Amino acid sequence: MVIILLYPAFDRHPTSQVVTLDGQNYLVDCGEGTQIQLINYKIRRSKISHIFISHLHGDHYFGLIGLLNTLGLLSHQQEMHVFGPSPLKEIIELQLKVADTQLCFPLQLHTITGPATLVDTDKLTVKCFRTNHRIECYGFSFTEKKKARSLLPEQARSFEIPQSFYDRLKNGEDYTRKDGSLVKNEWVTAPGEPGRRYAFCADTRYDESLIPHIEGFDMIYHETTYLDNLRERAEARFHSTSKQAAEMAVKAGVKKLLIGHFSSKYDTLEEFEQEAREVFPETSLALEGVCYEI
Amino acid sequence: MVIILLYPAFDRHPTSQVVTLDGQNYLVDCGEGTQIQLINYKIRRSKISHIFISHLHGDHYFGLIGLLNTLGLLSHQQEMHVFGPSPLKEIIELQLKVADTQLCFPLQLHTITGPATLVDTDKLTVKCFRTNHRIECYGFSFTEKKKARSLLPEQARSFEIPQSFYDRLKNGEDYTRKDGSLVKNEWVTAPGEPGRRYAFCADTRYDESLIPHIEGFDMIYHETTYLDNLRERAEARFHSTSKQAAEMAVKAGVKKLLIGHFSSKYDTLEEFEQEAREVFPETSLALEGVCYEI
Repeated sequence: MVIILLYPAFDRHPTSQVVTLDGQNYLVDCGEGTQIQLINYKIRRSKISHIFISHLHGDHYFGLIGLLNTLGLLSHQQEMHVFGPSPLKEIIELQLKVADTQLCFPLQLHTITGPATLVDTDKLTVKCFRTNHRIECYGFSFTEKKKARSLLPEQARSFEIPQSFYDRLKNGEDYTRKDGSLVKNEWVTAPGEPGRRYAFCADTRYDESLIPHIEGFDMIYHETTYLDNLRERAEARFHSTSKQAAEMAVKAGVKKLLIGHFSSKYDTLEEFEQEAREVFPETSLALEGVCYEI
Repeated sequence: MVIILLYPAFDRHPTSQVVTLDGQNYLVDCGEGTQIQLINYKIRRSKISHIFISHLHGDHYFGLIGLLNTLGLLSHQQEMHVFGPSPLKEIIELQLKVADTQLCFPLQLHTITGPATLVDTDKLTVKCFRTNHRIECYGFSFTEKKKARSLLPEQARSFEIPQSFYDRLKNGEDYTRKDGSLVKNEWVTAPGEPGRRYAFCADTRYDESLIPHIEGFDMIYHETTYLDNLRERAEARFHSTSKQAAEMAVKAGVKKLLIGHFSSKYDTLEEFEQEAREVFPETSLALEGVCYEI
């Protein structure tokens, strides 16, 4: 799983991230000009199957209609699923209608109305959860499905399990021998690697109600619009400080923290990193064009 | 009057132009990323008072909402007039509403429903006219008001006209002498320079019904999506060829022709220029970032 930042995520500058998994690209937010950034960073637009829009502030979605339009012109084939709060569907449909645009790919516009499982395939689950922002806003969690259990060949042979059953063992099935006796799966396999987990916490105030949705994750992105000496301003404007993002990472017991959405009033970002690392050392700045691998 | 191209105006790539007059910027079309191009080319956003949207294909207006939003954040002061066909007003209002955006400047969204005079000040008249495109589409003509007449001082003195009346002579008034005899204005003044005239012909098929709106203009921009060997394709797709644009310039008796909106299927533009110049030598390619002065 790789997360690629398409923008430095300065406050009020466009936000967009790409989560890649198994050759598929999942786009999270789509600020104006995202389609240009996709080209700049050589990210295959044809591999985008899902787009998740956190909320309807322009810096998070003004680039969506342009991207969909361009995909139509590029003869995009794959079905495209777009998720976002109301009235995103209405806005996009209106804009397609007035231009008399017939997209050449199936477009599914899904309205998010509350916490939900948005995608559930054999590879991945994507869920959304409410964040605490001025308007209706959602974070997104990406959970890779647990990998198959790994076979312990010696044990399997000792129970005389035929090789043709090994794939079913990896999927967790027990084996019943000809004499009717049961071979429990855990006797002949070891647990597979746990699936990787990433959460995008969107724009939000510091809010511990997010914790259950991101607990123990490998990496989370949390916004840090201000430094902590402006905690009151952050609160008033429905944003967070760098220290608060780090405190969230600690309380949620995550492994890594990515911070972004810095206010443009700051000229440099070192202090954001410093402030967060004092609380949570495994913090990185979300920088444009950088890939963060999990 | 200066026309600045913000995009190379390739087919399906964003279109945007700035017409400057007397320190005021008039924006014509506003494709995605126009606000970035305004910064790149150091065009003062605070001096934009009017935005004209020709039609609701995305490459001509997807950047509008982002620009308005940013102007709001920059504490833009001046009243902003936006003109475009229906339902542009509805789209913009919906997007502002869902983001709960309160712009800090007065925004007037005007719906164009047919040929009309959109702006009429003591400096400038802007009119719109229908072009021949797949969806409702308008061109825009910019006509500078005729400059004041110039005084012929010797003649004025010979008629014993007091200097205090000279400004009224420049504005075209006649003078009545104390003995009741009339001094006709044209005896003591020469015509002022005519106002400069520029027309943006938007996306359009070759259509001679445009001529009355652009006749004798100093410069027109006319689209040339294809070379003339694809005249049928141009017709079918509601676009023009380079030769047709040049023929329009000849028939309308304009002084200069700017061609743009070249299809991205062409790698180079020399042939467009050549083809047009064979018919109308005073043709220039519309190139990104270049200023065309009238």
